[in-house]
Amino acid sequence: MAPAMSYKVDLSHLERDGGGSLTQQLVDRFAGAIEAGELAPGEKLPPTRALAAAASINHLTAARVYRRLAEEGYVTASVGRGTFVRSLAPAAAEERGDDWQAYVLPDRPSTYQEEMLSDAFRLPGEEGMISLATGFPSQRFHPAQEMADLSAQVFADEGGAALSYLPAPGLPALREGLADLGRRRGFATDAAEIIVTSGAQQAIDLTARALLGPRDVVAVESPTFTGSLLALRATGARVIGIPVDEDGLDVEALEQALARHEVRLCALQTTCQNPTGVDLSPERRLRLAELAVERNLFVMEDGAYSDLRFEGERPCPLRQAAPGHVIYVSSLSKVVGGGLRIGWIAARGPVHERLAMLKQSADFHTPTLVQHMAARYLDGDAYDRQLAKGLPYYRERRDALMAALERHLAGEYDAAVPRGGHHVWVTLRRPAEERTLYSEAVRNGVSFTPGGAVCAERRKRTSLRLSFSLVEPDELEEGVRRLARALREVRRRDRTATAAPLS
Amino acid sequence: MAPAMSYKVDLSHLERDGGGSLTQQLVDRFAGAIEAGELAPGEKLPPTRALAAAASINHLTAARVYRRLAEEGYVTASVGRGTFVRSLAPAAAEERGDDWQAYVLPDRPSTYQEEMLSDAFRLPGEEGMISLATGFPSQRFHPAQEMADLSAQVFADEGGAALSYLPAPGLPALREGLADLGRRRGFATDAAEIIVTSGAQQAIDLTARALLGPRDVVAVESPTFTGSLLALRATGARVIGIPVDEDGLDVEALEQALARHEVRLCALQTTCQNPTGVDLSPERRLRLAELAVERNLFVMEDGAYSDLRFEGERPCPLRQAAPGHVIYVSSLSKVVGGGLRIGWIAARGPVHERLAMLKQSADFHTPTLVQHMAARYLDGDAYDRQLAKGLPYYRERRDALMAALERHLAGEYDAAVPRGGHHVWVTLRRPAEERTLYSEAVRNGVSFTPGGAVCAERRKRTSLRLSFSLVEPDELEEGVRRLARALREVRRRDRTATAAPLS
Repeated sequence: MAPAMSYKVDLSHLERDGGGSLTQQLVDRFAGAIEAGELAPGEKLPPTRALAAAASINHLTAARVYRRLAEEGYVTASVGRGTFVRSLAPAAAEERGDDWQAYVLPDRPSTYQEEMLSDAFRLPGEEGMISLATGFPSQRFHPAQEMADLSAQVFADEGGAALSYLPAPGLPALREGLADLGRRRGFATDAAEIIVTSGAQQAIDLTARALLGPRDVVAVESPTFTGSLLALRATGARVIGIPVDEDGLDVEALEQALARHEVRLCALQTTCQNPTGVDLSPERRLRLAELAVERNLFVMEDGAYSDLRFEGERPCPLRQAAPGHVIYVSSLSKVVGGGLRIGWIAARGPVHERLAMLKQSADFHTPTLVQHMAARYLDGDAYDRQLAKGLPYYRERRDALMAALERHLAGEYDAAVPRGGHHVWVTLRRPAEERTLYSEAVRNGVSFTPGGAVCAERRKRTSLRLSFSLVEPDELEEGVRRLARALREVRRRDRTATAAPLS
Repeated sequence: MAPAMSYKVDLSHLERDGGGSLTQQLVDRFAGAIEAGELAPGEKLPPTRALAAAASINHLTAARVYRRLAEEGYVTASVGRGTFVRSLAPAAAEERGDDWQAYVLPDRPSTYQEEMLSDAFRLPGEEGMISLATGFPSQRFHPAQEMADLSAQVFADEGGAALSYLPAPGLPALREGLADLGRRRGFATDAAEIIVTSGAQQAIDLTARALLGPRDVVAVESPTFTGSLLALRATGARVIGIPVDEDGLDVEALEQALARHEVRLCALQTTCQNPTGVDLSPERRLRLAELAVERNLFVMEDGAYSDLRFEGERPCPLRQAAPGHVIYVSSLSKVVGGGLRIGWIAARGPVHERLAMLKQSADFHTPTLVQHMAARYLDGDAYDRQLAKGLPYYRERRDALMAALERHLAGEYDAAVPRGGHHVWVTLRRPAEERTLYSEAVRNGVSFTPGGAVCAERRKRTSLRLSFSLVEPDELEEGVRRLARALREVRRRDRTATAAPLS
């Protein structure tokens, strides 16, 4: 057994009495052999079972030895490939160009979500493609002239101060303006609660960094917003998906998760949820607020789409029911424009302090000019006027998309009518392979966001996020027609494949 | 011994043969007692030595048991106070307001550096106080009118697109403009290397996050820039300080550190270093570049002050010598204004990809309007004109500060004449207690940055960072006079205290 080991690492004379020392003895011997160069960089170590046999230890101990060696930087473990001696200074690095980077960078493979989001920013508007993948606000509503005027006013009034530093939590006037919006909407009561961020994305990222580390567990509604998944995953925390139905996050499923894990944070959109467009029901709101207080759970309530509501009354933010337990994040992106990068956090207590410190070490503060512009924009009725302009436009497109789905895919899918936002979440009644369907759709000239890209976990059902915010009603119709054609093609091939062995 | 333990956690009948199981058995028993409520939330566990005696184990094993319980979230350990059962759901959370947050937030005490930096943003310009603590660029040079014009042009040319999303690495025109500056200065060759960030602070933070985790070691020049220390520490990595002398970072000391630790990143300013104002010597540049390549070490080269140079030739960035190993970070803050929040990273290879992904999950991208303005600003000679205006102003203040030091503190201090930047690093020949000196100085109407706030490690020597960028020459003179008076007062008290026991 494991002959290569026998002469390189001495496995004899291990002291076998008590206290975890076996593991440490073996770690020390391997580390010594690696430091002495007896085990060469890049060399593969025997599988744990071989080590266990050679050293007469159980294989959990062997696995622990390798894990600790990896933690201490002596070896790298690669799933499916094995455990290798890590090279501290590989020879000929110069000749290998930047390949060494891939070798020494901490393991963190890029995810499906990262790719999809990256594509969303890169690919909209490819020639002849109808993109139902991108839910950005439509540029045609961006208040460019108003913002141009505000920028001129800011420079006229502030001079050089418009280019000077600000305190990390933001321009006092903007914090006041956001608190004022917060009092009207129910997400904040005082400017001291507000931290201005560079979009809701940064608000989410800071919240994730403040609360989560590699040993923590976070519960997130699934499906959800891709950017949220990315930021939560970037902390190294374990991300657990909680299903969403037509009443929003399944709070009972959350309770079950709370019983099994010490969940530090629950992240969700309570209103016009991305991508389902549903609201969290009043009963569930109440129960979630209670749970947060009972269990001392932080809740990140993302209100990004809360103002982009087509019908029904705007529900009161969860934060009002549990202000110390809910960290509210949102932005001006959906109404005023995402390129502005003005978002905010409303939170209080020690976590507010923590978030403000993190904002400072993350980027000092959000650009001064843009904060001044946003403060002036909020000081008046411009925001409400802007919202009133956008809503009928988006509602028309939602209706066109729902009608097109019913026309071309009747009987094939389920989808709630979104109460607001930019997306429809379509679930197929019979599953289809997601990537195959995506490729076939793109071949037919329509793109969408595959459900897997916005879910926290693998799902058996096939879902598609269709975004209508950038597409004209007739193009939505044509896009769904192409999608239906792609689905028929995938189904036809499935039938042929199933039929083939019989013929 | 430990009577409280004996009936709450059964320590008898432990299996004492092999494989780390003793630790696990004890962990399981404690965890069981905590889950069953036999050990109450908030209850203090006996010291490790008492546990060791009660369970007949060695005290390292006892310590390991508590550490593992802490890792698994059952207990919290607080240095100097002991180990306590963690409360998963303390009763009466509602009544305790937000206190529960402090209890459940991951331990991360705010640091001296955080406080100092926070003060720097909050306190400049208190009535009657001469602040030598804040090294911000002077507002009087900020090109407000030029920027106002550029903003108007951007809105006129781009319309709604000025408020729309951009790709994470930045506006192509700005990346081109920065690459062009990079070719002139030697920090970049191609726009594909550039990632636009929200100031150098974000560039540093992203680099730290891309490379460092809680198990890693980072070497940083000490003293250094406070923001850099904050971002490096925020990753949980171990931060090792490498001394700086008049030839910059002590590369020999770095080599010694590389022999002792697996250093993943070395962070430094190579030119007009903050706070010493020195350049890394050509010999050390060469050796550091070699080391980076030989040891496959990432180097973060912060060029924030590189253009703010009063005399002597601008040295070529380290990055030119080892482009795949050096991540260059800088900003427009020192020349154009910090509130603009335009910085960048120049890097290539897999780490560039990693950084671009992190930028995306951190905040999608830096605000669109500001990127357009910066791109247009760089497209011409505005930057060079701006620099030419600022340099004589800052040089005059540096000279005034050096003269005042010689006048009021001759024989008491050492300080290199900074070749550029905003600061003088003053080291007292005889130590004085830093916080006492700081309090006495503030009482005398002058503030400064205590050396400890910008050092990675405790030092025996007493140093002060004096920043001259915002202060008029006659006020610099008066500030140093007050500082000298404060120092005399501290010395007088020290003598009295020393003399007292003899009298």
